[in-house]
Amino acid sequence: MPQFLDASAVDFEERFVALLGAKREDSPDVDAVVAEIIADVRARGDAAVIDLTSKFDRLDLTPETLVFSAEEIDAFCEQVSQEDRTALELAATRIRAYHERQMPEDASWTDESGATLGWRWTPVSAAGLYVPGGLASYPSSVLMNAIPAKVAGVGRLAIVVPTPDGQANPLVLLAARLAGVDEVYRIGGAQAVAALAYGTETIAPVDKITGPGNAFVAAAKRRVFGKVGIDMIAGPSEILVIADKDNNPDWIALDLLSQAEHDESAQSILITDDKAFGKAVAAAVDKRLETLERRAIAGASWRDYGAVITVSDLSAAAQLSNRVAPEHLELCVQDPDGLAEEITHAGAIFLGQYTPEAIGDYVGGPNHVLPTARSARFSSGLSVMDFVKRTTLSKMTLASLRAIGPSAERLATSESLEAHGLSVRARLDALNE
Amino acid sequence: MPQFLDASAVDFEERFVALLGAKREDSPDVDAVVAEIIADVRARGDAAVIDLTSKFDRLDLTPETLVFSAEEIDAFCEQVSQEDRTALELAATRIRAYHERQMPEDASWTDESGATLGWRWTPVSAAGLYVPGGLASYPSSVLMNAIPAKVAGVGRLAIVVPTPDGQANPLVLLAARLAGVDEVYRIGGAQAVAALAYGTETIAPVDKITGPGNAFVAAAKRRVFGKVGIDMIAGPSEILVIADKDNNPDWIALDLLSQAEHDESAQSILITDDKAFGKAVAAAVDKRLETLERRAIAGASWRDYGAVITVSDLSAAAQLSNRVAPEHLELCVQDPDGLAEEITHAGAIFLGQYTPEAIGDYVGGPNHVLPTARSARFSSGLSVMDFVKRTTLSKMTLASLRAIGPSAERLATSESLEAHGLSVRARLDALNE
Repeated sequence: MPQFLDASAVDFEERFVALLGAKREDSPDVDAVVAEIIADVRARGDAAVIDLTSKFDRLDLTPETLVFSAEEIDAFCEQVSQEDRTALELAATRIRAYHERQMPEDASWTDESGATLGWRWTPVSAAGLYVPGGLASYPSSVLMNAIPAKVAGVGRLAIVVPTPDGQANPLVLLAARLAGVDEVYRIGGAQAVAALAYGTETIAPVDKITGPGNAFVAAAKRRVFGKVGIDMIAGPSEILVIADKDNNPDWIALDLLSQAEHDESAQSILITDDKAFGKAVAAAVDKRLETLERRAIAGASWRDYGAVITVSDLSAAAQLSNRVAPEHLELCVQDPDGLAEEITHAGAIFLGQYTPEAIGDYVGGPNHVLPTARSARFSSGLSVMDFVKRTTLSKMTLASLRAIGPSAERLATSESLEAHGLSVRARLDALNE
Repeated sequence: MPQFLDASAVDFEERFVALLGAKREDSPDVDAVVAEIIADVRARGDAAVIDLTSKFDRLDLTPETLVFSAEEIDAFCEQVSQEDRTALELAATRIRAYHERQMPEDASWTDESGATLGWRWTPVSAAGLYVPGGLASYPSSVLMNAIPAKVAGVGRLAIVVPTPDGQANPLVLLAARLAGVDEVYRIGGAQAVAALAYGTETIAPVDKITGPGNAFVAAAKRRVFGKVGIDMIAGPSEILVIADKDNNPDWIALDLLSQAEHDESAQSILITDDKAFGKAVAAAVDKRLETLERRAIAGASWRDYGAVITVSDLSAAAQLSNRVAPEHLELCVQDPDGLAEEITHAGAIFLGQYTPEAIGDYVGGPNHVLPTARSARFSSGLSVMDFVKRTTLSKMTLASLRAIGPSAERLATSESLEAHGLSVRARLDALNE
C-alpha cells in the first residue's frame, strides 16, 4: 500500500520531507572495478574490449566483428514487423520535428563603443550513445538520444549496445538506422564507455557520451567526464500526477503504474484536492496490479515509494510538486495551462487528461530523457543543446579599445595581473602616438 | 624556451600530438579528505564549518559571523578607490548587457495532429558561487559568475569566499554588491561547498554551485554533483594566437604572457604563417620576461608548455587550432571574420589586433569562465543557460491522441511496458465508446 498523506495533518511536513528524502537507489560501489576496466582499455585497446566482452557478454569478437556491418543491420531491420516499423517512423518524425525547433541561434551586434560582440553555435564533432542490452534495451531511447545529436549536426554518431550471448534487438538497430547513426558496436559496460572516450585501434574516440546504463556504465561515465562530455546520470523514473475529481480513476492509476512498472525504485505520486478521488485511484491501481504483466515490479514500487497526497486546493498541489521537482508531471485538472504557470521545477509537463505520460515516452515529440531525483531544480532534459557548444566572439575597434581598455587595465592591475594590463596598454600607447 | 614546431617537418604530427596530450596539471588526490569534510558538514552543520574554518583559515567564527553583515560589506566597499569602482561598474554594465541577450525564449505551437507542444524556461531558485581567497581572489570572476545568475532570475545567490586570517578583498565584496549577490559567507574549501550543497543551521542549501577553486574545491564539487548542479571543473588557462606577419610582435608577446602569468601550468601557443614573425614574438616574450612582475610563473609556463608553430597558410592554422580546441583564441590576421568561419572548437574568439584577450577577462561583455583542457570540443563557457532549465510541455487533444496514440501503444508493447500501452488504450477505448 502506498503512503496516504493529508496536507492539513499536523505531521504532514515531517512525512513529506521524509518522502522527499527517501533514498530509492542503492548504487553498488563499482568504482574500483570500473577504474581497472578503463585502465585496461586505455592500455590494450581492442584486445581489452574483446576480452571483457567475452567475459561479461559471453560473446567472442574480433576487431572486425566489433562493429555491425551494414548488411547485418539490414538483416536485422528486415525482421521488424511493418506495424512496429510504422510506429517507430512516426516517433522518429515527431521527435525530429520537435527537436529541430531547439536549434539555438547565432548572434552578432555592435554596441555603443563600436565593439562587435556575439556568439556562434557549433556541433560536437563526434558523439557516442550508450544503449543498454537485455530488458532495458529500448528502441525509443535510441531515437531520443540519436535524433537530437543528428539535428544538432553531429558529424559522427556511434552507438554501443551489448549483445549478451549474441542476442541483438532488431528494433534498436532499426531505430539507429532511422536516426541516422553512423556506427553500431556490439559492446557494452564500462569497457564500451572507455572505448568511446579514449578510442581503440578500431573505435575512434568521441567528444561526448550520452545514454542510460547500469551502475558500471554510470560509474564509467563519471570517470571519463572531463576527457569527454557526458549527459546526466539518470536515476529511477518518477511521475507526479496532480488530478482533480473530474478524472477517470483508472486512467490516472495506469499513468502512475506506467512509471512504477519501470523499476522497483521508481516513484509515483498522486496529489489531489479530493480525498475520495485519491482513494478511488489507489483502488484502481490495486485492481490493475492483479493482472499487470510487470505487477511484481510495479507493485513493489507503488508499495515502497508510492504516495497519495490530499491538499486543500490545486495551488497547494503545485507548491508541493515544485518541492518534488518531478521528472514527469501530469496536470489532469480543469485548467492545466493555468496550473502550469505555477510550476517552477519539472522535467516535462503533460497537460490535461488526454495526455498520458506514455505519449511523451514515444511519440509526443519532446525528449524522454529527463532529470530525475529532484535534479529538475537545476537541469533540463536531453536536447539539441547537449550536442552543440557556444563560442563567444569579441572584436574591438580602435575607438572601442580606447573607450573600455583603460578599465580593463585598471582591473588587471587590481588583480596583480601585469601582462593582462600591458597587453591593453601597449596597444593604447601605440594608438596615441 | 618554448617549443618551435614547423607543420612541414616530418616529425610535426608526432610533436603536435605530444603537445596536445601534454598533461599540464598534476591534481593531488584529495578525494578521501574531501569525503570526510563533506560527511562532517552533513553531520554537524555549522559546528563543522566553524571548526574547519578555524583549522584551515585560522579564523574563529560563530554562526552569527559566518555571514558578512550589510554594514561590514558597506565598510569594505568604502575602501575601494573611485577609479577601481568606476572600472568595476563599467565591467558589470557590459557583462550584464551581453548576458541579457542570452535569455532563451519559451516556445509553444500546435502541430498538424492538433497537439500543442513547446517548452518553458525557469530560473534555478538558489545558486551558490565559490570565490577563492588569497592570490586568486578575482573580483572579475565574481561578476562573471554572479551576473549571469541574476540575469537568469536566480532568486537567491550566495557567495562563499574564504578570508584566511580574517583578510577580505574589498573589491570582491564590491563586485558581489554590484552583481546583486544576496548573501556572502566568509568560508571556503570543501567545507564551504558542502555547506552550500547540503545546508547547515545558518546556511540554506542551494540548487547549483559554480565558480573556480583549488583541488579540494574541485573534488568537493565533483562529489556533490547530483545533489546540486555544478559548472565545469576548470583547468589551467590557455591561449592560442593565430597571427600573420602584419602584427606588432610585442603585442602578441604580451597576449601570450597574459595567460602564462596565471599559472605555471597555463599554456600559450602561437601559430603563424611567417617563421621570422614567430621568432620575433618569441624574442619579444623573452624581453618582457626580463621585467614582468610574475616572470617566474609566466616564464615557467612559456618554457614548459609554450609553443610557436609555423604553418604554410592560415587555413592550416585554423585546422590545428580546432584540434587544440583552445579556451581563448585570438585571430590577429587581415580577415579575422573570414578565418573565424573555419573555427569549429574554441571557448572564445578575439578578432583582430585591437582585441587582446585581456579585454575579454574584464570588460568585453562575454563571460571569461570558459572551457579548458580541450573541453571546448563539447562544452561552452558559463552563461545565463547555466542558471535556467527547460520544462517541456505537451498537450494532446482527443484528435491528436487518436492520431498518434496507437503508435505509442505499439512501441510500449514492443518494449514490454504494458501499463504504458494501457494508459493510452484505456483513453482511446473510452473515446471510441
